Amino acid sequence: MGERTNRGVVYRAPGVVVIEPIPFPRLFNEAQKRKCEHGVIIKIIVTNICGSDQHWTTGRLPIDPGTVLGHEMTGEVIEVGSEVEYIKLGDIVSVPFNVACGRCRDCKEGNTNICSNANPGGLACYGAPRCGEWIGGQAEYAMVPYADFNLTVFRDKTKAMDKIKDLALVSDIFPTGFHGAVTAGVGPGATVYIAGAGPVGLACAASSFLLGAAVVIVADLNKERLAQAKKIGCEIVDISKDEPIPEQIRNILGVPFVECAVDCVGFSAHGSGVEGHKKEQPAHVLNTSIEVTRPGGKIGVPGLYALGDAKATDENARKGALSLRLGLAWAKSISIASGICPVAKYQNRLINCIMYDRVKIAEAVNAQVISLDEAPQGYVDFEKGAAKKFLIDPHNIVRTWGHK
Amino acid sequence: MGERTNRGVVYRAPGVVVIEPIPFPRLFNEAQKRKCEHGVIIKIIVTNICGSDQHWTTGRLPIDPGTVLGHEMTGEVIEVGSEVEYIKLGDIVSVPFNVACGRCRDCKEGNTNICSNANPGGLACYGAPRCGEWIGGQAEYAMVPYADFNLTVFRDKTKAMDKIKDLALVSDIFPTGFHGAVTAGVGPGATVYIAGAGPVGLACAASSFLLGAAVVIVADLNKERLAQAKKIGCEIVDISKDEPIPEQIRNILGVPFVECAVDCVGFSAHGSGVEGHKKEQPAHVLNTSIEVTRPGGKIGVPGLYALGDAKATDENARKGALSLRLGLAWAKSISIASGICPVAKYQNRLINCIMYDRVKIAEAVNAQVISLDEAPQGYVDFEKGAAKKFLIDPHNIVRTWGHK
Amino acid sequence: MGERTNRGVVYRAPGVVVIEPIPFPRLFNEAQKRKCEHGVIIKIIVTNICGSDQHWTTGRLPIDPGTVLGHEMTGEVIEVGSEVEYIKLGDIVSVPFNVACGRCRDCKEGNTNICSNANPGGLACYGAPRCGEWIGGQAEYAMVPYADFNLTVFRDKTKAMDKIKDLALVSDIFPTGFHGAVTAGVGPGATVYIAGAGPVGLACAASSFLLGAAVVIVADLNKERLAQAKKIGCEIVDISKDEPIPEQIRNILGVPFVECAVDCVGFSAHGSGVEGHKKEQPAHVLNTSIEVTRPGGKIGVPGLYALGDAKATDENARKGALSLRLGLAWAKSISIASGICPVAKYQNRLINCIMYDRVKIAEAVNAQVISLDEAPQGYVDFEKGAAKKFLIDPHNIVRTWGHK
Amino acid sequence: MGERTNRGVVYRAPGVVVIEPIPFPRLFNEAQKRKCEHGVIIKIIVTNICGSDQHWTTGRLPIDPGTVLGHEMTGEVIEVGSEVEYIKLGDIVSVPFNVACGRCRDCKEGNTNICSNANPGGLACYGAPRCGEWIGGQAEYAMVPYADFNLTVFRDKTKAMDKIKDLALVSDIFPTGFHGAVTAGVGPGATVYIAGAGPVGLACAASSFLLGAAVVIVADLNKERLAQAKKIGCEIVDISKDEPIPEQIRNILGVPFVECAVDCVGFSAHGSGVEGHKKEQPAHVLNTSIEVTRPGGKIGVPGLYALGDAKATDENARKGALSLRLGLAWAKSISIASGICPVAKYQNRLINCIMYDRVKIAEAVNAQVISLDEAPQGYVDFEKGAAKKFLIDPHNIVRTWGHK
Repeated sequence: MGERTNRGVVYRAPGVVVIEPIPFPRLFNEAQKRKCEHGVIIKIIVTNICGSDQHWTTGRLPIDPGTVLGHEMTGEVIEVGSEVEYIKLGDIVSVPFNVACGRCRDCKEGNTNICSNANPGGLACYGAPRCGEWIGGQAEYAMVPYADFNLTVFRDKTKAMDKIKDLALVSDIFPTGFHGAVTAGVGPGATVYIAGAGPVGLACAASSFLLGAAVVIVADLNKERLAQAKKIGCEIVDISKDEPIPEQIRNILGVPFVECAVDCVGFSAHGSGVEGHKKEQPAHVLNTSIEVTRPGGKIGVPGLYALGDAKATDENARKGALSLRLGLAWAKSISIASGICPVAKYQNRLINCIMYDRVKIAEAVNAQVISLDEAPQGYVDFEKGAAKKFLIDPHNIVRTWGHK
Repeated sequence: MGERTNRGVVYRAPGVVVIEPIPFPRLFNEAQKRKCEHGVIIKIIVTNICGSDQHWTTGRLPIDPGTVLGHEMTGEVIEVGSEVEYIKLGDIVSVPFNVACGRCRDCKEGNTNICSNANPGGLACYGAPRCGEWIGGQAEYAMVPYADFNLTVFRDKTKAMDKIKDLALVSDIFPTGFHGAVTAGVGPGATVYIAGAGPVGLACAASSFLLGAAVVIVADLNKERLAQAKKIGCEIVDISKDEPIPEQIRNILGVPFVECAVDCVGFSAHGSGVEGHKKEQPAHVLNTSIEVTRPGGKIGVPGLYALGDAKATDENARKGALSLRLGLAWAKSISIASGICPVAKYQNRLINCIMYDRVKIAEAVNAQVISLDEAPQGYVDFEKGAAKKFLIDPHNIVRTWGHK
Repeated sequence: MGERTNRGVVYRAPGVVVIEPIPFPRLFNEAQKRKCEHGVIIKIIVTNICGSDQHWTTGRLPIDPGTVLGHEMTGEVIEVGSEVEYIKLGDIVSVPFNVACGRCRDCKEGNTNICSNANPGGLACYGAPRCGEWIGGQAEYAMVPYADFNLTVFRDKTKAMDKIKDLALVSDIFPTGFHGAVTAGVGPGATVYIAGAGPVGLACAASSFLLGAAVVIVADLNKERLAQAKKIGCEIVDISKDEPIPEQIRNILGVPFVECAVDCVGFSAHGSGVEGHKKEQPAHVLNTSIEVTRPGGKIGVPGLYALGDAKATDENARKGALSLRLGLAWAKSISIASGICPVAKYQNRLINCIMYDRVKIAEAVNAQVISLDEAPQGYVDFEKGAAKKFLIDPHNIVRTWGHK
Repeated sequence: MGERTNRGVVYRAPGVVVIEPIPFPRLFNEAQKRKCEHGVIIKIIVTNICGSDQHWTTGRLPIDPGTVLGHEMTGEVIEVGSEVEYIKLGDIVSVPFNVACGRCRDCKEGNTNICSNANPGGLACYGAPRCGEWIGGQAEYAMVPYADFNLTVFRDKTKAMDKIKDLALVSDIFPTGFHGAVTAGVGPGATVYIAGAGPVGLACAASSFLLGAAVVIVADLNKERLAQAKKIGCEIVDISKDEPIPEQIRNILGVPFVECAVDCVGFSAHGSGVEGHKKEQPAHVLNTSIEVTRPGGKIGVPGLYALGDAKATDENARKGALSLRLGLAWAKSISIASGICPVAKYQNRLINCIMYDRVKIAEAVNAQVISLDEAPQGYVDFEKGAAKKFLIDPHNIVRTWGHK
């Protein structure tokens, strides 16, 4: 067994990710010197490129060269730690991107996004800098700790493989978009404004429909992404136009406001208007959300805001601070819910929705399956704004399923 | 103006309802000696026959001969009381069946179903015995008190008329079914068992889909109604079969239980099985719901349970008591939420869902538009179990809309 | 009746409020040209000076000279409009400061703070600029519109008068402090950080105890107010000290964070430290709250943030924008709930707590009863930071109750 | 280590419990043939006699002779399984009575009361028949599986020992009473009716005060227990009197109803009145609760209802069914929440309340510390209705703490 090999997506320099041999996973976290007999090793069936990966690979947020990337994993269990009780060899599983111990107060309360133990210093995530050094999963094989707690098993393997492109998305972006919608108060009959037509924005749109929203309006400056939003039944707002956003909303709804807003963009937001959209304005999405949300409404913020942003154009933003129109928010009694999604909280119900055809999430985000060797090109295309979500299929399993 | 005439559906004897001239409405409640300048008079556009009407007209529950029936009204405002401020002549409005004052503690908390003022002795409803003596609305004209609070206006009249058969259902059964689903905890990915494929059951099924349910199972003994449930995407359980209900559920889901159950039948429940379904067993639906709901689940009970039932087959039921398997409910930590729907709480959002084509509620319940003179036949057919919801169109407005 | 006279507190110039004759109230809103037969006229029993009054009288926020101030009223009904049905002559009533119609969507949902009708352009409040021009209640008499909806009646007049100093506080600051605690998620066992030991902060502290909080920490720079906080069982943080706030919290709790934070200060916040506390830093309270709230926690913001602040020291703040550490909030998954309290939502339960001696709110905020003529001095003392809440007793009723 | 001895409370026959040598615990569940390296062994500091123990020991509910009783444990960790990561030797811990795996869907959602894995056939509890055969803790030593998940550690050992009688109660009855209050909707200003003045009823009363209730009314037929309720600030209803319960409530509140009701009695309920209270009427508490709860109210049911009751006086009750006034409940839109408390959900916050002196729970339930050898007498006294909660101190630690 000593000869088992592995390959993964490795960050080398800003703009440069490569496919390299990496160590075969062990039931151990080297950096934390931590035994993981509660973990399993999985053979990756599918692992996706995420928008947050780009923040690191483009050099926006700090990361060490050599880091193996990837936190959206679906796989087959091929090795089981001695402490694992319920996960079995051969299980097909989804891995929530949050690494969680299942034993601390926050995990017990379902808040796996803020587990105190998996990374004592902060957020815990696979393949992400300063997140507990859990090796990334854009690879052939990966290790998942606390497997009984963290993993969700797809009981019917055949049916799961038939929907594997959809199920691949419950490790992160589908729950993340759903969380954004839930925290914004989306429910039956709601009108929703979603900033960002990237994969999270589209997942949020699909989630909003699932939650019964009457009208889902998606805003972006990327025409191709807006076209994808339109294709799945959303109304659109093109922020590269000079027509003010509230007016674009009025054209759709008859009123210049919505009940719920979701910021699926985060700190790299651009301004709006023919000139304005060309440069970054980190508070623009949030301030627009405050402006277009009706009194008493809520704003969900799944989009990432960084603790600091060395490349930011304004000084506040460099320190992770934003000039927010709090006076307006206060006058309108608006609430703002921010932060990372606790994926485990939503997985079972979203899987049910997929298995019973209540949502076509892979179609919604335009999932494209590529090989591991194509991953670097996927990063390039995604950074250019391709209206696609890239799913890496390192063992050629997804692309051959059903064709045998 | 003294010559204005009116006609309505009047209860005469068990099994006998007739169309008779009735007084033109006044802004006054005769029985309560109560001035209603806060009210309006509406010309009825559409008014529906409800399952609860049948409890009275069949003689099951006590009612006085001469009662004008009807509590599901949609109409056009033709006279406005002097105290009305926001409702205008010509407005097309929906009337929640709950009569509510908008001033008591419960109304302020959104619980218009238990308003303390509209009927100081108990529940308040139009056209229903001992419910405050608010005249029924299966008529050409009707009066609605506290109009500013009670009415919901459809702002775009043309669009509203285009969807009038759907909108007709927000006065009662759509919100009632929705309330049942909400109180049962239905949400994205849920598996739901709905007892009863009558209009409320089907409205609950449509609501469950709107709330994101993964699988909706509807149970009945009426084949025609089960076929209607199947047509709108539900799975079905036929309680007239000897196969136990949990086994029928297992055939659908792989497990013999659901997460949420809704009792859309009420106190006139039948037993199950080839023999059992032939006679009444008033606790059967609730006990089955307790049996098939998974631990931690909830049961919503929009179906009516009467304070007493003179015609009941067992003595307990005659006093409004049921032999409930509380031991089993307790062991499974199940909650039971019962009672009448506060319609106003849900109207805006359900109207939005209709206007933006997120739900086809008239299709779901198989709405059939009839004339006022056909209403007595509608009562007969509905009592026989027609898989239809009858919408009375007293002025021939609905049937000619769009055909002019 | 034409000779009936009235006197009230009138704003004249920055720092100048005077007692002047003002018109006796009518059931009419002159500015809105709006008939108010749904209203009543009350003889004021007690009416309080509020911290927000100061924002106007000091010239911080714009207000027209001649404005009659006051929005915290308790009184006896002496005249009843023709449309009023449930409020009776002689009733002793509390007036929530929110003017609300009771008929719009938001009122129906209990959100009387954002009523669409009482001031079509924005928030509605008595005695406040641009809030619908409802005449202020720091006077002998005042008019309350939509009386059936807005007023809460104290059924037992004698018991109510016995507790009138406590009940005087349910028109605003007790519910406002309670709302802050509720929106911050305070519940049994919680640790709470409250910025501001003025009347709202102390009301929030008392509310937190009522909600079961284990430890309530109140922060201020005013020693007298901190002493008052200590007196009612709170722990204190003195922001005028150089010891960092998290360290002061650690000394109390053993950890440098709390579960819930409430900003009872608003836009006129000062910095911290021996030097820092001497000047305004409008974002300081919110950023400190983000810093000391544990991951997953909530921040309630009853403290007022203005749409603009002409006197602000930094340019952002002049436009109502604050430099908020959103990156840190996001990393900690913190939610922020801002805005004005919907008083009616909480009145009944808080009155119950007062009547059954579960809270001593007048003691908590150190209520001081003064005459109408003493009101201008009350404004001066309050602005100087007196650890008192001034209750104006224009008819000498409160001060003589029980002494007759 | 093989010679380590243990003694515990063992059920021998109806009415007979004895202190016997029992095996020293192992990290293993014999009946389930299940390795428990995730468990720890604790030296019991204090372990309580519970009302549910009596249902078995009196022969009411079936139990096998030889069963070691006890599910309310607090102890010191003296042996740690190899898989345990966060619990350390020497930790002072509370053991929730629910045995929970921390890995199934229900545990992840915080519903440790319905864990699917700890007892695949049903509820899981220590020292209880058919509950997974986890050995009881009324002993010198006991084993707790899934220790990282199940145990709550008291970080400051000295402070914990100073409050050990209070902390002993967070393993069951304090959270159980609290859960009853929470599920009944108790909050600030609420009026609450609690059936039963035994330890759970008193814990529910103390919890209701903690949640801010304005008035807490406790009903019982046992004078001594009623006196204890009165002592802690409750109003009382004596069900052995002929005055109807609603009238007794009216004497207290002025109205014959409350907002929240909690059934802390369960299936062994008695009737009311001078004659009625002398015999069992299993549905009496629930039907009374339905009667005295105001419309829209909730009833929490922590009191145990059995799946079957061989000793019941009526046939329905023998099968675990009750004749419930559902018609009345429905007319009043009342909800009923039943079942076992998920203790872990509430422990942290209740411990905080104890540690910061917000509640005196040991005083409230009149905790009495006894030796292990006195336990059989404790069972006898408790069965006779002593207004006491018995805390067993097997190692004489509690009784000597602070006296050294």
